[in-house]
Amino acid sequence: MSATRFTYLGPEGTFTEAALRTLPEAATRELVPAVSVPAALDAVRAGEAGAALVPIENSVEGGVTATLDELASGEPLMIYREVLLPIAFALLVRPGTALAGIKTVTGHPVAQPQVRNWLRANLPDALWESAASNADGARLVQEGRYDAAFAGEFAAATYGLEPLVTDIHDAQNAETRFVLVGRPARPAAPTGADKTSVVIWMGEDQPGALLELLQEFAVRGVNLMLIQSRPTGAGIGNYCFAVDAEGHIADRRVGEALMGLKRICPKVRFLGSYPRAGTARQDVRPLRAGTSDAEFTAASDWLARAQDGRTDS
Amino acid sequence: MSATRFTYLGPEGTFTEAALRTLPEAATRELVPAVSVPAALDAVRAGEAGAALVPIENSVEGGVTATLDELASGEPLMIYREVLLPIAFALLVRPGTALAGIKTVTGHPVAQPQVRNWLRANLPDALWESAASNADGARLVQEGRYDAAFAGEFAAATYGLEPLVTDIHDAQNAETRFVLVGRPARPAAPTGADKTSVVIWMGEDQPGALLELLQEFAVRGVNLMLIQSRPTGAGIGNYCFAVDAEGHIADRRVGEALMGLKRICPKVRFLGSYPRAGTARQDVRPLRAGTSDAEFTAASDWLARAQDGRTDS
Amino acid sequence: MSATRFTYLGPEGTFTEAALRTLPEAATRELVPAVSVPAALDAVRAGEAGAALVPIENSVEGGVTATLDELASGEPLMIYREVLLPIAFALLVRPGTALAGIKTVTGHPVAQPQVRNWLRANLPDALWESAASNADGARLVQEGRYDAAFAGEFAAATYGLEPLVTDIHDAQNAETRFVLVGRPARPAAPTGADKTSVVIWMGEDQPGALLELLQEFAVRGVNLMLIQSRPTGAGIGNYCFAVDAEGHIADRRVGEALMGLKRICPKVRFLGSYPRAGTARQDVRPLRAGTSDAEFTAASDWLARAQDGRTDS
Amino acid sequence: MSATRFTYLGPEGTFTEAALRTLPEAATRELVPAVSVPAALDAVRAGEAGAALVPIENSVEGGVTATLDELASGEPLMIYREVLLPIAFALLVRPGTALAGIKTVTGHPVAQPQVRNWLRANLPDALWESAASNADGARLVQEGRYDAAFAGEFAAATYGLEPLVTDIHDAQNAETRFVLVGRPARPAAPTGADKTSVVIWMGEDQPGALLELLQEFAVRGVNLMLIQSRPTGAGIGNYCFAVDAEGHIADRRVGEALMGLKRICPKVRFLGSYPRAGTARQDVRPLRAGTSDAEFTAASDWLARAQDGRTDS
Repeated sequence: MSATRFTYLGPEGTFTEAALRTLPEAATRELVPAVSVPAALDAVRAGEAGAALVPIENSVEGGVTATLDELASGEPLMIYREVLLPIAFALLVRPGTALAGIKTVTGHPVAQPQVRNWLRANLPDALWESAASNADGARLVQEGRYDAAFAGEFAAATYGLEPLVTDIHDAQNAETRFVLVGRPARPAAPTGADKTSVVIWMGEDQPGALLELLQEFAVRGVNLMLIQSRPTGAGIGNYCFAVDAEGHIADRRVGEALMGLKRICPKVRFLGSYPRAGTARQDVRPLRAGTSDAEFTAASDWLARAQDGRTDS
Repeated sequence: MSATRFTYLGPEGTFTEAALRTLPEAATRELVPAVSVPAALDAVRAGEAGAALVPIENSVEGGVTATLDELASGEPLMIYREVLLPIAFALLVRPGTALAGIKTVTGHPVAQPQVRNWLRANLPDALWESAASNADGARLVQEGRYDAAFAGEFAAATYGLEPLVTDIHDAQNAETRFVLVGRPARPAAPTGADKTSVVIWMGEDQPGALLELLQEFAVRGVNLMLIQSRPTGAGIGNYCFAVDAEGHIADRRVGEALMGLKRICPKVRFLGSYPRAGTARQDVRPLRAGTSDAEFTAASDWLARAQDGRTDS
Repeated sequence: MSATRFTYLGPEGTFTEAALRTLPEAATRELVPAVSVPAALDAVRAGEAGAALVPIENSVEGGVTATLDELASGEPLMIYREVLLPIAFALLVRPGTALAGIKTVTGHPVAQPQVRNWLRANLPDALWESAASNADGARLVQEGRYDAAFAGEFAAATYGLEPLVTDIHDAQNAETRFVLVGRPARPAAPTGADKTSVVIWMGEDQPGALLELLQEFAVRGVNLMLIQSRPTGAGIGNYCFAVDAEGHIADRRVGEALMGLKRICPKVRFLGSYPRAGTARQDVRPLRAGTSDAEFTAASDWLARAQDGRTDS
Repeated sequence: MSATRFTYLGPEGTFTEAALRTLPEAATRELVPAVSVPAALDAVRAGEAGAALVPIENSVEGGVTATLDELASGEPLMIYREVLLPIAFALLVRPGTALAGIKTVTGHPVAQPQVRNWLRANLPDALWESAASNADGARLVQEGRYDAAFAGEFAAATYGLEPLVTDIHDAQNAETRFVLVGRPARPAAPTGADKTSVVIWMGEDQPGALLELLQEFAVRGVNLMLIQSRPTGAGIGNYCFAVDAEGHIADRRVGEALMGLKRICPKVRFLGSYPRAGTARQDVRPLRAGTSDAEFTAASDWLARAQDGRTDS
């Protein structure tokens, strides 16, 4: 195993690499691109990398299903960090190319819906063809196969290109969430602004199961941030749910909710508790009354006394 | 204090005394009648009696409010046993009295609605006057003040009367539930067919609080057997709830539900966990999946492993 | 039938009569006392009185079970008005009696817990004996049988007595709620500060039924003001619930909630929609978003269009 | 507009075409392939096709996000039919090719995870490259660019190929669900085995909103078959939900649930009520007690009588 090496969804010059470089712990690691999300995560499972950064949620496209499905199955992995990256594209060209000279453009298929309006307004006659990644598109421009590529501005230098236009994005607030995934270990201590990820399987043919699942969280005052259904592979209508909840597995309200899920669901996989990106501790929604650790402890003490015949109210 | 003495809602010859005598532990105690439910419970609080048997619920009249209110307030007490007694009246007369000669009848006011139809059919012209208790009515017949009294058949001997008619009860299945109340101590171990009593106060002006209260039980699969609202004395619309739940405070699903209530309600008073009368262990409703102690323990173990970074599914 | 005559729980001089006299419509009626709540309501059923005023809830003692049970069973009746009356007692004596000369006191049994502290502080040695009603106690003082009676101050004149002390009440905010009951007819139009009363029967052995009942109200944003369990007479553990809800049966959220109850419960009895006493329209809790009549109508219109294939969003 | 022409996600020879041909109404239409899901649906919006068949859910890959997002936005469309198609691949080769001679294989990227195990066992050394569609892969084999393509067996004839191996699928029960989409019109009458699709938007920052949404369905006994979250495009954490519910918009329980959603959610889009594929009427889950149209009608009648003062129970 190599804790000195981090992998990420490559190739070089993608938004994933840019996101990884925002993490202080990446500064001292060797960063190695992987050809796919499964390849990145398998490198971690095999001990060839200490951790992998992969995209998990996109504000335009939704959950990244390859990542969700890889985390839900196979040998367990755990999330240790998340990174939120605003997604804005640059139009990269070979030095000297002018806007009027662009007949063909390329980019990752995911980029297309995010630049469609800009293209219609600015390059209505340019022909779009998809590339395997934004970075790969830049490479194809370098090789002369296309006139321009949509990619992150940071990719220009790598491929000897120039950013002709920057900050292109059709949707306001477009951003992608990435997670740093490693082999399972004890989560870092709570920071007060944490998030817990789990995957929860439902039993078959239980129409009210999702409602029960949500009530296990609600009754303990645990707010959900994301709930994403994924097929289990056992046929149409069989789903598991990837859930992100506010709080840390060491918080008693979260722990009790997870135990409740564990009892009523066929399978629960804990994917980690980690600091929330982009949320300062003072911006966390206040806890519902009766759900703080202090209140849990006071109630435990009360119960122990009552079980012992010491009723005090 | 006198553990050798039990008190009960008197006078002698009432159904409460009959209920008390069904308890094996009463056979070796001195049984002392009290003039009222508060008097019986205060004798226990003062250490003058080891326990008191008092009625708490009547299938015709409902909750016995004096008992509920006494248990909810004042120095804490605890319920250790319950007794279910079918309520059927005998018409007690002085020896030699015939039905045709009965012009006046008496009995406790609570008895009246339970014999009204019988009276209309059999003694349509008899005048009813209330007595302070069924036993007191029997005494007044002995003294010649009334011709007949409705009371338990067992009261006849005490007052030198004869049961002229027996098994009188308008309602099918009329029965009264009594509880044996003592000073707080560690409850007996679970029997598998147990009941837990609590009183729960709501915060002011919280229209959804009762729903939340019920959900604390429901989410842990704890069934309720009785819920009875009682005014708190703080004005119209301010209520607390006396609740009987299936299970024992040592059962983990019950303990977790009580802790949940303790956290969200201003005040919870534990009134005891004790064997259910009239329900054999095999007749207890099966537990909902995921709520047994074994499943609670397995979930706790799973959580401890997950908190330690050992995810196993 | 006699719409010109109102009856009430007598005798004359009780708090019920005082409450009745606060109603403008009582000013032009003949007011006739009845010996009991059932007698008062039967007089209405028989057409001998146009309406009856009876107590239904007491902030110290709770629901008045005789009234609840009478409204829940027998020929249907309906509530048209409610009256809230603060309960404060006067100590009534024959002219010339001084506090020091009082050896015996009387009053209705319900009065005793409300004056117990005052008695302990001011007449610690006086002997209490119960009377059939507060007014009856006053009559017994007039006849010389007791030295003093607790009753409403307004009862003094009727019985030729003097109020020696006034405004006696142990509990703050002690008050009683009375209802004016008549034969069923179309309720008056909503005032914006209304209340709806129903009695709801549960099916047998349905531990989650109360939770379902509350959810029928909660999902439509209808707040409950009172929920009171009453035995159905079919044995321990068989209950119906008397419920007071905010709003009027003509309000669509209330109507839809009642229909929901009607579908899932074996029996629902509508007891009336009537103005809330003591609550001005501006003091009514604001409706939850999405539950106004206008929002119900907009949603019905949307549904009708969607069913017709005209989707508009 | 051209009701005589149906479009579908092309090219010819895809599973979508195979699914479309199972519909009787397709037999009399001109079937025109479209290059993408948006292109197919825009052709319907523009009146160039009477309806479009597009995939919406895959038992291995989950919801087809392009379809969900197109139905949720833009000019409203409506679903009229669904088709369930088992997904099994054939390995198509040029006549005369033997298994031992296959060095390169192709197919749609979605096919790869469904044939991965088969490839590992039978062609461990073959190189996989993705094609734009399964049918496109077949064309590339025809042109000699690859040795074999995974596609539907039915595509062989179109491209002059032979199915060398058939019925290849790693997952048991792999199937895809397709929907026939048209311009909005009145849905066909209920068949007794129907499904209703809606898209529901949540308000911002309402952590309990999904629970409330599910309760609107649950309280009316409407079971959900699928719930799929999709980003609204307004930033990470902003989701709408695509929901399939059992029943038809003309069923009163479904209509009332939709009105409830309409009242509490910022936006609800009705996507149609249509017969469930693969479920005979007798296999539909029985309705929960109290949720049939007859029970809704009886409750409406009861309410109308109660509002008119005719209480009948």
